[in-house]
Amino acid sequence: MAMSRGMSRRGFVGGVAGALGAIGLTPRAEAWARRARIAGEVGALGPEDDYDAFAKLANNENPYGPSEAVTKAMMRAMKYSNRYGYPDSGLTEELAKHHGVKPENVLLAAGSGEILDICCSTFLRDGLLVGADPSYNILYSHATGLKADIVRVPLLADFRQDIPALIRATRMNYRDVGLLYLCNPNNPTGRLVTKDEVRQVLDGIPEDVPVLIDEAYHHFVDDASYATSVPYVVEGRQVIVARTFSKISGLAGMRLGYALAPRNLVQRMRPWGTGSINALVRYGGVAALRDTESQAWVKKVTIDLRTKTTRELAALGYESIPSDANFFMVNLKRPVQPVIDEFKKKGVLVGRPFPPLNEHLRVSVGTADEMTRFMVAFKDIMRAKAANDKE
Amino acid sequence: MAMSRGMSRRGFVGGVAGALGAIGLTPRAEAWARRARIAGEVGALGPEDDYDAFAKLANNENPYGPSEAVTKAMMRAMKYSNRYGYPDSGLTEELAKHHGVKPENVLLAAGSGEILDICCSTFLRDGLLVGADPSYNILYSHATGLKADIVRVPLLADFRQDIPALIRATRMNYRDVGLLYLCNPNNPTGRLVTKDEVRQVLDGIPEDVPVLIDEAYHHFVDDASYATSVPYVVEGRQVIVARTFSKISGLAGMRLGYALAPRNLVQRMRPWGTGSINALVRYGGVAALRDTESQAWVKKVTIDLRTKTTRELAALGYESIPSDANFFMVNLKRPVQPVIDEFKKKGVLVGRPFPPLNEHLRVSVGTADEMTRFMVAFKDIMRAKAANDKE
Repeated sequence: MAMSRGMSRRGFVGGVAGALGAIGLTPRAEAWARRARIAGEVGALGPEDDYDAFAKLANNENPYGPSEAVTKAMMRAMKYSNRYGYPDSGLTEELAKHHGVKPENVLLAAGSGEILDICCSTFLRDGLLVGADPSYNILYSHATGLKADIVRVPLLADFRQDIPALIRATRMNYRDVGLLYLCNPNNPTGRLVTKDEVRQVLDGIPEDVPVLIDEAYHHFVDDASYATSVPYVVEGRQVIVARTFSKISGLAGMRLGYALAPRNLVQRMRPWGTGSINALVRYGGVAALRDTESQAWVKKVTIDLRTKTTRELAALGYESIPSDANFFMVNLKRPVQPVIDEFKKKGVLVGRPFPPLNEHLRVSVGTADEMTRFMVAFKDIMRAKAANDKE
Repeated sequence: MAMSRGMSRRGFVGGVAGALGAIGLTPRAEAWARRARIAGEVGALGPEDDYDAFAKLANNENPYGPSEAVTKAMMRAMKYSNRYGYPDSGLTEELAKHHGVKPENVLLAAGSGEILDICCSTFLRDGLLVGADPSYNILYSHATGLKADIVRVPLLADFRQDIPALIRATRMNYRDVGLLYLCNPNNPTGRLVTKDEVRQVLDGIPEDVPVLIDEAYHHFVDDASYATSVPYVVEGRQVIVARTFSKISGLAGMRLGYALAPRNLVQRMRPWGTGSINALVRYGGVAALRDTESQAWVKKVTIDLRTKTTRELAALGYESIPSDANFFMVNLKRPVQPVIDEFKKKGVLVGRPFPPLNEHLRVSVGTADEMTRFMVAFKDIMRAKAANDKE
């Protein structure tokens, strides 16, 4: 039983580090290809291998997973899997430095989903939610679970958020509004709110209304009219910016997100959070924040594949809503649910229906291989449908 | 960029599995010793290595970490680090089967701490908390954060919970009580509530008062007068049993716990939880539940070391409160804070003060090596104190 102190996990980590060393530090694409080549060495995990075989374009995930730097950081932190919060990797301080705010402005959470939950618990116990419809529906589900009232403001004809109507709805219900929600870019449409529009919102509503600006898809935007709303936090405006490591950093399964907000809002929100971030992703998060090269690569390959796929769809006569995210919506010109079912039969998982957009299919941008499988299935399904329609 | 579908992470996992294979499946003690021997291969992680050098007896953690089976399950699940909840490992169903309840009676959480948070959010928004003092103070902190009132019932002279007084406090405040809390065994004392006492409580209070029974230390109990309260959940009594994988399974840093409760309570609690369990520990949890051999080993070595250490302390004239957990409290017969500081200087982290027990030191049971370091430091500190007292 006698063991050197603090050493038992470290030995173990040595083995892992060795294995990772074998994968090496070659350029990313090559490294990923090599991993793919040695896939045959892996034993089966169980029935979930069936799931692995699908093209997974349903949940706006990053199909590449965490980068090597992030994976290594998490592996090294495996030695803390039996320890509560310490040592803590300095993630809060790193985020504060990265965004030019103080640590008191940062609230960590187990995914930005938890930030949305915390906002509901903090601001909607006796308050109304105002937001676009459709937008990220998990927020609305949670608000409904807490029996909060919701004012849903329909999108414009071009699927952008109706900024004047959001301002009007907030002003008309001012005494009751607990929270105004802006998802930017919006999920499920992929459309952004410009920096001028964010300014309009903040100038157009009473200053004490908390505004939750969900920037989960921030890193995929490539449009000069857009800007992050973090500067408003620095100004002390009642703005909560939600961010996640799930998308650009490929850590959805590891659960890490955060809010940036003025001190008074963080203090109100903190009691409603769990602070339950696992030891691995505390380290993975720091590594991800620094790995700007991987972020740039994921952004580029995602935008390239999104552009390529939407062009191919347009050539077939199917228009997509212009997107600034790692997903897009294509207009099928027919009810979406039967098409979703057909895709599943062909091994391709695509987004669920997002009413009232009942003829638009949301497609997450997967790998090149997954997008090829998507296009093959799309053509099959639409050709069969066209043939049936003729009969 | 072209990659086989679903393969990129699998190749990687193959490498890890290989590394783990090298560690092998020898009996546990040997395997741990081998890991300790190869510790020299590990590179530095950063300033947190200073923390590694401490004997860590402050947080009631499991010093051995997750077992090999659990570690391997988590490594294999690393391929899901970029995926939301799917595939989900069937953890809820496994827990239901294990405890003889239905899946609808299981609420997963990111540690049992989140279960405590959820109970506060669910039951204490307009309700009073009744519980022993001292008990697990994170619950009281959270309740205070939500501005809930708390009725604290002092422990008896033998440090057991005062069951008649808890019943009286609940009955006297019946209309206001949102939750009655029983930590069993209690933290920080380690003393248990017998099965007869639990029955007294449930028979002694109005049936609609939710009772949270925190069984975080359940697996370390070796006393025939004790029993889990899970059967009350099956009966449909308004009992919430909280459990964790942090202690017996060594997964504190991975954040996994759960509640077992009747359907009506789970439904009330669910909206206040995040459901934010990371992909790795969903698999680690299933493996841990099945690894009863490791649980038995951890229980045995912990009880043996607790017994050995408290006997050595008694031989020096320092009595401990009888404990049924992976920690104990020793009566220093002097204020505890200066002694805690002395321990830290000697590289041993021990528990913080738990007022009003201001002369009792809480010591978590670490490895044999850590307990030896604790005893050496204890003798030094107490000898120096005795010498100073004489002068």
